[in-house]
Amino acid sequence: MSYDSRPIGVFDSGIGGLTVVQHLMRVLPHEHIIYFGDTARVPYGSRSTDVVERYAVEDASFLLAKDVKAIVVACNTVSAVGLGAVRAAFDIPLLGVIEPGARAAARATRSNRIGVIGTVATIASCSYTTAIHAINPSIEVIGIACPLFVPLAEEGWTGHPATRLVAEEYLSTLRSSAIDTLVLGCTHYPLLHDLIQDVVGSDVRIINSGEETAYETTAFLTQRGLLVQGSPQPSYRFFVSDSPEKFRLLGERFLGMPLSEVVKVDITTDAGH
Amino acid sequence: MSYDSRPIGVFDSGIGGLTVVQHLMRVLPHEHIIYFGDTARVPYGSRSTDVVERYAVEDASFLLAKDVKAIVVACNTVSAVGLGAVRAAFDIPLLGVIEPGARAAARATRSNRIGVIGTVATIASCSYTTAIHAINPSIEVIGIACPLFVPLAEEGWTGHPATRLVAEEYLSTLRSSAIDTLVLGCTHYPLLHDLIQDVVGSDVRIINSGEETAYETTAFLTQRGLLVQGSPQPSYRFFVSDSPEKFRLLGERFLGMPLSEVVKVDITTDAGH
Repeated sequence: MSYDSRPIGVFDSGIGGLTVVQHLMRVLPHEHIIYFGDTARVPYGSRSTDVVERYAVEDASFLLAKDVKAIVVACNTVSAVGLGAVRAAFDIPLLGVIEPGARAAARATRSNRIGVIGTVATIASCSYTTAIHAINPSIEVIGIACPLFVPLAEEGWTGHPATRLVAEEYLSTLRSSAIDTLVLGCTHYPLLHDLIQDVVGSDVRIINSGEETAYETTAFLTQRGLLVQGSPQPSYRFFVSDSPEKFRLLGERFLGMPLSEVVKVDITTDAGH
Repeated sequence: MSYDSRPIGVFDSGIGGLTVVQHLMRVLPHEHIIYFGDTARVPYGSRSTDVVERYAVEDASFLLAKDVKAIVVACNTVSAVGLGAVRAAFDIPLLGVIEPGARAAARATRSNRIGVIGTVATIASCSYTTAIHAINPSIEVIGIACPLFVPLAEEGWTGHPATRLVAEEYLSTLRSSAIDTLVLGCTHYPLLHDLIQDVVGSDVRIINSGEETAYETTAFLTQRGLLVQGSPQPSYRFFVSDSPEKFRLLGERFLGMPLSEVVKVDITTDAGH
């Protein structure tokens, strides 16, 4: 059996990808992880495809220069519209969050009616719909963009009455569509999990794409003989393109634990060097 | 008397600066205007000073390459934390929005209690407080960051109950502080004018920094002999770093009229070339 003790690289448009790292740490407790959050250019979800592609290639290039063994694209927007560009640019095992989320949702639904919420770019791409239809074309997928959820989550208003009003407005279509499964198609949304569950009703099964991606990463590394050898104490390194202080402060809420070292880099000049 | 028929350059982190352009067009109806909105890297208001400075210098460099006669920094965040960097980099007449807004507020107040609302970066910089205190140190200035106002304005929820709840929470300190003047220290906030007026009460005088900047730009160009000669039909050109379509669509609401030609440029490679 072969092993690979190099770190797993994870990148995201900003801080949200830490909700994916949280699950990676839990299911792969001995793997080293290098995270890059492009906080100087966040958010990606409201940008056009070619800008997201360009940023994604630069982000991946940065991680490659750190000698990672695989890259997990924690960002739903990049996974939805930028994965092809990264795949075309580099020869590295690459895992996005769309397909794991889509597979889990297709497994979970009984009524064959799935809701997907995400950024404008993710929903407009219809990536979840395409991925779900590749598994079962008879499943109806209703996608709703929820652009205010990210700033509300970052503001920490996860249980605020204003957030509830916003959620009720965004999710009203889903409530009347009789879905039985809802995909959280944005890394920030797990912070609003309880409020979203409350608004859509307790009979709707919520799928966290980030968590599903952690499971699929485990399977992927195992099958390819890329797991770390032995049971080392893992190292976690975090890089950002804007202030490390703000990232560390906010990040604790996304990661569910305090952050270790956070280093600022200039992605437009440091990428790949 | 001398004249200068070159265009006025205006830049902003994104689309909000169009509320400043709207007033420039009104008070200087014959001036040519070139606008740059850095929509591929918006928002600036949550970023750290050195990132904002770097972006601001690139934005100004782009306008300089278009041979503008003066630059109006429509973005409050750049005016608050990045004006010095732009001034140090280039020899060009430069007008920010902070000082005009501060002067108008200091003139307007009777109770010597002024509220200022803006982005996290603008409020943390205390730029409005510093500018107001330079005029009258006995004025009390209460600054409140309102980070959710920008996404709510961009979502078009200018009269939504959720927006009212958000405004009530953000502005509660101001309501109990007996201010008589409130500065809208962010280019997006004029879109929420009526709701903000309603929440703070009709006895509070609202100052729009962008509008005040248009008046000061008129005075500045007149004094320096930099007005356009004659009464030509003005030309308006708009450049953005992300999708022109989205900018044109959203922009009409910010400019108060349809937008003409919008051109996409790559600011990180085209700046200054």
